[in-house]
Amino acid sequence: MSKNIAIEAKRERPMEEQTSEIVERKGIGHPDSVADGIAEAVSRTLSQYYKENYGRIFHHNTDQVEIVGGQAKAAFLNRELSQNRGYKKGGMVLEPVYILLSGRATTTIEIDGHKERVPYRTLAVRAAFKQLKDQFPNLDPVEDVIIDCKIGQGSVDLTGLYDTRKQLANDTSFGVGYAPLSEVDTITLKTEEYIIEKLRHQIKALGEDIKVMTSRNVDKIHITVAQAMVGKHVDDPDAYRSVKDELREKLLDNAAKYTKRELDISINTADIPEKDIYYLTVTGLSMENGDDGSVGRGNRVNGLITPYRPMSMEAAAGKNPVTHVGKIYNLMSMLIAEDIVKAGGNDIKEAHVCIVSNIGHPVSEPQLASIQLIMAGGVSEAKYRGEIESIVSGWLDNHEKITDMLLNQELKVY
Amino acid sequence: MSKNIAIEAKRERPMEEQTSEIVERKGIGHPDSVADGIAEAVSRTLSQYYKENYGRIFHHNTDQVEIVGGQAKAAFLNRELSQNRGYKKGGMVLEPVYILLSGRATTTIEIDGHKERVPYRTLAVRAAFKQLKDQFPNLDPVEDVIIDCKIGQGSVDLTGLYDTRKQLANDTSFGVGYAPLSEVDTITLKTEEYIIEKLRHQIKALGEDIKVMTSRNVDKIHITVAQAMVGKHVDDPDAYRSVKDELREKLLDNAAKYTKRELDISINTADIPEKDIYYLTVTGLSMENGDDGSVGRGNRVNGLITPYRPMSMEAAAGKNPVTHVGKIYNLMSMLIAEDIVKAGGNDIKEAHVCIVSNIGHPVSEPQLASIQLIMAGGVSEAKYRGEIESIVSGWLDNHEKITDMLLNQELKVY
Amino acid sequence: MSKNIAIEAKRERPMEEQTSEIVERKGIGHPDSVADGIAEAVSRTLSQYYKENYGRIFHHNTDQVEIVGGQAKAAFLNRELSQNRGYKKGGMVLEPVYILLSGRATTTIEIDGHKERVPYRTLAVRAAFKQLKDQFPNLDPVEDVIIDCKIGQGSVDLTGLYDTRKQLANDTSFGVGYAPLSEVDTITLKTEEYIIEKLRHQIKALGEDIKVMTSRNVDKIHITVAQAMVGKHVDDPDAYRSVKDELREKLLDNAAKYTKRELDISINTADIPEKDIYYLTVTGLSMENGDDGSVGRGNRVNGLITPYRPMSMEAAAGKNPVTHVGKIYNLMSMLIAEDIVKAGGNDIKEAHVCIVSNIGHPVSEPQLASIQLIMAGGVSEAKYRGEIESIVSGWLDNHEKITDMLLNQELKVY
Amino acid sequence: MSKNIAIEAKRERPMEEQTSEIVERKGIGHPDSVADGIAEAVSRTLSQYYKENYGRIFHHNTDQVEIVGGQAKAAFLNRELSQNRGYKKGGMVLEPVYILLSGRATTTIEIDGHKERVPYRTLAVRAAFKQLKDQFPNLDPVEDVIIDCKIGQGSVDLTGLYDTRKQLANDTSFGVGYAPLSEVDTITLKTEEYIIEKLRHQIKALGEDIKVMTSRNVDKIHITVAQAMVGKHVDDPDAYRSVKDELREKLLDNAAKYTKRELDISINTADIPEKDIYYLTVTGLSMENGDDGSVGRGNRVNGLITPYRPMSMEAAAGKNPVTHVGKIYNLMSMLIAEDIVKAGGNDIKEAHVCIVSNIGHPVSEPQLASIQLIMAGGVSEAKYRGEIESIVSGWLDNHEKITDMLLNQELKVY
Repeated sequence: MSKNIAIEAKRERPMEEQTSEIVERKGIGHPDSVADGIAEAVSRTLSQYYKENYGRIFHHNTDQVEIVGGQAKAAFLNRELSQNRGYKKGGMVLEPVYILLSGRATTTIEIDGHKERVPYRTLAVRAAFKQLKDQFPNLDPVEDVIIDCKIGQGSVDLTGLYDTRKQLANDTSFGVGYAPLSEVDTITLKTEEYIIEKLRHQIKALGEDIKVMTSRNVDKIHITVAQAMVGKHVDDPDAYRSVKDELREKLLDNAAKYTKRELDISINTADIPEKDIYYLTVTGLSMENGDDGSVGRGNRVNGLITPYRPMSMEAAAGKNPVTHVGKIYNLMSMLIAEDIVKAGGNDIKEAHVCIVSNIGHPVSEPQLASIQLIMAGGVSEAKYRGEIESIVSGWLDNHEKITDMLLNQELKVY
Repeated sequence: MSKNIAIEAKRERPMEEQTSEIVERKGIGHPDSVADGIAEAVSRTLSQYYKENYGRIFHHNTDQVEIVGGQAKAAFLNRELSQNRGYKKGGMVLEPVYILLSGRATTTIEIDGHKERVPYRTLAVRAAFKQLKDQFPNLDPVEDVIIDCKIGQGSVDLTGLYDTRKQLANDTSFGVGYAPLSEVDTITLKTEEYIIEKLRHQIKALGEDIKVMTSRNVDKIHITVAQAMVGKHVDDPDAYRSVKDELREKLLDNAAKYTKRELDISINTADIPEKDIYYLTVTGLSMENGDDGSVGRGNRVNGLITPYRPMSMEAAAGKNPVTHVGKIYNLMSMLIAEDIVKAGGNDIKEAHVCIVSNIGHPVSEPQLASIQLIMAGGVSEAKYRGEIESIVSGWLDNHEKITDMLLNQELKVY
Repeated sequence: MSKNIAIEAKRERPMEEQTSEIVERKGIGHPDSVADGIAEAVSRTLSQYYKENYGRIFHHNTDQVEIVGGQAKAAFLNRELSQNRGYKKGGMVLEPVYILLSGRATTTIEIDGHKERVPYRTLAVRAAFKQLKDQFPNLDPVEDVIIDCKIGQGSVDLTGLYDTRKQLANDTSFGVGYAPLSEVDTITLKTEEYIIEKLRHQIKALGEDIKVMTSRNVDKIHITVAQAMVGKHVDDPDAYRSVKDELREKLLDNAAKYTKRELDISINTADIPEKDIYYLTVTGLSMENGDDGSVGRGNRVNGLITPYRPMSMEAAAGKNPVTHVGKIYNLMSMLIAEDIVKAGGNDIKEAHVCIVSNIGHPVSEPQLASIQLIMAGGVSEAKYRGEIESIVSGWLDNHEKITDMLLNQELKVY
Repeated sequence: MSKNIAIEAKRERPMEEQTSEIVERKGIGHPDSVADGIAEAVSRTLSQYYKENYGRIFHHNTDQVEIVGGQAKAAFLNRELSQNRGYKKGGMVLEPVYILLSGRATTTIEIDGHKERVPYRTLAVRAAFKQLKDQFPNLDPVEDVIIDCKIGQGSVDLTGLYDTRKQLANDTSFGVGYAPLSEVDTITLKTEEYIIEKLRHQIKALGEDIKVMTSRNVDKIHITVAQAMVGKHVDDPDAYRSVKDELREKLLDNAAKYTKRELDISINTADIPEKDIYYLTVTGLSMENGDDGSVGRGNRVNGLITPYRPMSMEAAAGKNPVTHVGKIYNLMSMLIAEDIVKAGGNDIKEAHVCIVSNIGHPVSEPQLASIQLIMAGGVSEAKYRGEIESIVSGWLDNHEKITDMLLNQELKVY
C-alpha cells in the first residue's frame, strides 16, 4: 500500500523573485462562479440527503450548470430618460436568466430489500434557489431566474466502480496545488473578499459581480477591478463616480496591508461616460444582461486563476466529495503544499504538489504523489523528507477529512 | 354598420326534457385547468401592465401552456411501509412538474419617439408562480415546479391587424353559448365549487384536482367524482375511507339543492384497496405524478364540457381580451343567451347563440349573430325579436365591458 | 356483459333542414394539426415497437405536443426590397420552431425474468422528424425545427389499471359521433383534401397550412380559406394574385361537386396589398413565424370542428389506441353512426352516438351506449332497433379493429 | 503605439530535463471536446455568414455549449444475452443526448438605412448538426441527439465596445503559450491523432471518444488510453480483447517514433471482464450514456492539458475570432513561442509567452507582451532580442491572419 511519494528540489526562482506575475479572480457573482456555486450547493445538498438518510454519500457529479444570460435594462435611480414607464426604479430584468442544472446522481437506493427513490431533482432545484437567494440580495430568484433541471442517472459502469465504502478512485486523473500564495495572489483574493464581506454592506451600490485581475512588473502591482453597480442604489452619474472614487481608495488601503510594493488600481475601465456607458446593473450581476457562465471555467480550488502556476483543468465544484479525485486531489495538493511550507519555515520557499490517481484503487493509494520544492539557498530538501512524507501520508489516509470540510463549508472550491 | 342578427325558433326539445345528458367539469386543479389558469393569469398580468403604463392593452395571446407531469411518491401520514427514509411525512415530489409558458406578446412599444421594452417574460413567470401559490396551498412552487418561458414576439402581420384602438377582429372565427344551464350542468359546476370554496377548508385531506362527470338517464342523475387526496392529511386507509364517506354525504346533500331527481354518486372508482391503490397525492394535484395538461383541452367558458350543446374548440384562456374573437364571442354568446332567457321568462325555454366574426372588421360588427330559440308551447319568437336585437346590439357595442370584467376577474373562462 | 345500449328518436330537424350551419377544418399544416399529427405518429411508432418486439401494445399516451412558433422572413422570389442579403430566395427561417414532445410511455418491460428498456425518446424524436419530413416538403426539419422530448414514465396507478390483455377502460370518459356529414361538412373536408392531394402538386406556391371555414345560411354556402403561400414559388404580388384567382376557381369547381346550393368563396381575406401584407411563408407553414399550436385544440376525429353537433373535448391524437376510451369511443361512435345511417337508407336522417365508459371495466362493456336518431317522417325507430343493437355490439366486441385501423393509418384522428 | 514587449531569461530547467511530467488530451469525441467542436463550428459558421453578406465578422461569442449525456445500452454484436428484442445489433441509444447551444450573436444588422435580421439560430443548429454528422460516423444526429438553441443577443455595452473595423480588445484578459512541445506532449497529441486519422478507418471498433494521459518519470513514459469501442463492430469479449491487443501494439509502435525513452501503455483500465464491464458504446461516444460535457473544460489551444506549463483558463472555442483576446492571444502566444524557438535553433530551449490585453485598445497594442526564455548554457537572451521583438510585433500587427486561419480551419483550438 505504497503512497508512491516522490520528492525533489527545483532550480526555479520562487514567484516573488520573478519579474512578472499575473493573477485573476472571478468573484462570487461572476457568471462562471455563480455556476460553480450552484453546482457545489447541489452536490452538498445531495451529499447531506444521502448521508442523513442512508449513512453515506452516494455517487453523484453535479458539476454541470449552464447559465444563459437574461436581458435587463438598468437605470440610475433618478434618471428619467433611461427609464421605461413600467419599470421599477433602478431598472428591471426583462427576460429571466435561464439556469440549467445538469450532471448525474444516484436516483434510486436499494435498502432493506426494497428500492427507495431519491427526490434528486426537487433537492437540486431547491438548493439552487436557496444559493441564489442567500448570495445575491438584489436578485429575485422567482422572477429574475428560470431554474431548469436535467440531472439524470449516471452510467451503470461508473456507478459500478463507485463505492463510497471502498473509496476507489473513479478516474485516471490528477490534482495539483502550491503554497504559499504570493502577494499578488493574496491581494487578488482579499480585494474581492473585502468587498463581499465588508464594503457591500456599507455601500449599497456595490453588486456581487466582481472581477479582479492583478499584475506585477517587478515591484509595481496593478489591480484591475470590474465592479457591477446596482442601479437602484446609485442616484446618477455623479453618484456613480463617487462610489468609484470611494471604492478605489478603500481597496488601495486594503491591498496595502498585504504588500510593501507600489500599488495602483483601475476600476471599470470600460466605462465611457460621454456615451453614457457605465457598468450598471439591476441585480448586481452581469448575467442579467447577456453574460453566460458555466462550471469549471473560472477559479481553481484556491480561488484564483494563476497562469504561471501548476493548474488542473478539473472542475471541482459539484463533483462528489468522496471519490472524485479531480476534486479531492486538487484540494489535497493545496493543503499538503500549505502544510509543507509551514513545516519548512524559511527553508522551503515554495512547494508544488501533484497527485496522480490510480483508477480502481483506493483514493489513499495514488499512482504518484510528486512534491517539488524550491528551497532556500543552501538547504537540502533531504532535511524535510521524513516530515513531508508524513504530511502526505497523513492527508492521503485521512482524505475523508476533506469530505467533511466540504460538507461543513470549511473549504471553498472556487 | 349592421349587426347581421338572425333569430329563429328551433323545433327541439329543451335539454331538461331529453332523456339523457352527460356533462363534465375539470376542476381548477386538473392539469388542463391549471394550464388554463396560468395562461389567463399571464394574459391578465400583461394586460394590466400595458394598460397601467401605456393606457391600453397591446396585442398578446398567451394561450399556450404545456404542463409536463412530475414524479412523486405520496404516502399516508402514518404508514411506515410506503415511506422513504428521506421523505417528508405524506410523501414527496421527486421530480418537479415542468411548466412551459408559450404564446405571443408585444415585446417593444414605441412611444414618444423611442422604444420601450416590455419585461414580458419576467411578468409571465411571476404571474404563473403567483397563480400556483394562490391556488394550491399544498404545492411548493419553488421546488415542486419548474416554470420555463418561451413567450415570444408575434408575427408582424397579425400585429398589424391588431390595433386595440380600432378593435378589429383578429381572425375569422366564431363563438357559441347557450342558456340556461340544466340541472345536470348546475350540479356539475356546484359540486366542484362547493369542495373548493367550502369543504377543502374543513377537510384538509381534499386536494384541488377534482374531476366531476354527471350523467342523467331520464330522472336518475349519477355524479362521478375523482377527488385527489393529500397524503399528509390522511392518516391511513381507514381515514381515507372516512373522508370518502363524509365527502359522499356532503356532496349528495349539496347536489340535492339543485334538483328533485334521484341522485347517486361515485367517488374515486379507480381505487383498489386490496392492491393498496388509492388516489393519494402529495400536493393535491395529479400533475405531480405523470399527468400532463395543456390549455384549451378542458372546460369551455361556462366552466363545463357539454357534448350535446353548441361548443367551440377555441381555447379562451390566455387570449387577448380585447380583439380575440375566439375569447370575446364565446363569452358574449353565453352572456347574451343568459340575458335572452331572463328576458323571456317562461316563454323562452332555451337560447343558443353563435357569433361569427369578420376578419379586419370591428368586433362590434360580426358577419353573423345567430340566435336560435326553443320556445314554450304556443309562443312565437316574434314576440321577443325587438328585445333580443337590443340585447345582442347592446353587448356587441359594449364589448369592452367583457374586457373589463375579465381584468377584474368577474368572468371566468374555464 | 350488457352493452347498455339505449336507442331513442329525437324530434329535431336534420342539419340539412336547419337554416344555418358553420363548420371549420384546420388543415394538416395548421399548427394545432401539426401537433396532432406528430402526437399520433409518436403513438403509432411506439405501438409498433411494442407490438413487434413484445407482441402487444403497452401503455402510453403521447397526446401532448407543444409547438412554439419560430421567426421567419418570407419574401417573393423576385422582390429585392424585402430580401436580406444573406437569405435564400423566398426568405428564410430565422429562429427554428420549437416542438416539445411530452406525454407518457412504458419505459421498461419485464420479460423472461429481466427488464428491457424501451428506446422511447429516440423513437419519439425519430417519428416526429419523419412526420415533418414526409408531410411538409418546404420545411427543412434539421434547421427549421428543434425537436425536444420530455416524454416520461406514467403514474404507476394508471399503469396498473392499464393492461392491454384485459383491455379495461382507463378513465371515466365518453366519445361522441354522428352521421351523415352535411354538405357543408363535406365541402369543408374536401376543400383541404383537394389542395393537399392534388392542387399543391400542380401549383407549387400552395403551402400546407390551410384553414377552411364554411358557413351556410339557408341555401347560400360561403367558404373562407386561409391558404399559406410559399415565397420561393411566387415571383411577385402579381403572381400571388394569379395563384389566388386560380385557386378560387378550382375550389369552387370542386365544391360544386358536393352541393347544388349557391357557392361563394373568400381566400386570404387578411391580405392588404397596399400595405404589402400577404399570407406569404418560407415553409408553407405559419408556425415558422409566431404561430403556436398544441394537441387537441383543432379538428375532432372526423376531421372537423362542428359547433352545432355533438363534440367531445377529448384529444384523440397521441392517445394509446387500445384502451384509451377518449380515442376509441370517439372513433367508434363515428363509425357506428355511419353504419346506422347506411343501414337505415332513407329512413334514418341522422344518427348521434354517445358511448360512456366504465373505468376498470372492459372497453367492450360501456356504462352507456346512447343512440339518438332523427327519423324520416312516419318511420319508427323500433324498426331498426335489432339491427342497430347488432351494429353497436359488433363494434364494441371488435374494438381491436379500430386499433388495427389506426396502426395501418386507415383511420384519421384529426 | 508601443507593443510593451518584455523579454527575460528564466533560470528553470527545460521540461525535458525535469524528472516528472504529466499531460492529458481529451480526444475529439470526449464530451468536453464535442462541446468545444460545436461551439467553434457555430462561431465559424456565423463568421462566414457575416463576412459573406456584410463584409466583416460581427460580434458574437458562442462559447457556451452544454452537453447532457443520454442513456444508451450497448452490446456486443453476437451477444444475445445483453440484447433487447427491440434493439438494433450493437445496442441502441435509449434517450437522446441533449445539447444546448448558448452564447451571444449579433442578431440584427443595420445597413443601407434598414435593419436586416440574421438567421443566427437556424445557422447555429445547422452548424451543430453538420459538425456531429461529419465527425462521428456511428452517431445518428437525427435520433441520438436533441439540439436546442438559446443563443441570444449580447449586452449593448459590450457590443458597443466591439467594432471589428477598429478591432479593440473586448476585455482585460490574457493569453499564454509555450514551445516546443515535449516528447510527452507530442506522444499525447499523436496518439489520438493516429487513431482518428488512421486506425479507426482500419479497425471499425474504435470510437471517437478517446482520452490519453501520459506521464513521465525520468525516462519512463506511461501512456493511459481510454478508448470507446463501438458495439456493432465487436463480436464478443474475445474480439474486444483482440482489438485492445492490436491497439496496444500499434500505439506503442507509433509512440516510439517520438521518443527513445522507455514506453509503456494501458488501455481501458476500468474494464472488469469477470463482471462483464467493458468500455462498449453504441455510437463511439460516452456522452450517449450519462457523460456530460461543456466548453472550455478540456484541452487548451495546443490540444493539451499541461498542468506544469503556463495555462489560461479561457475557453477559446466559440469565441469570436476577431477581437476576443482570450482566443486571439492564446493562439498568438503559442505561435510566437513556436517562431521564437525556431529562430533560436539550439540556443533557445524553451519559450513562454504571455500577452495581456488593454481593454478598449487595439488588439495590436497589448498592455504587456512578456517573453520568458530558457536559454542553452552560456547563451544570452540579448542575442535574440531584436529578432524576437520583430516576431512579436509581426504577429500583433497581423493578428487578422489568425482570424483567417481559424476560418480556414488551419488552426485548431482544442
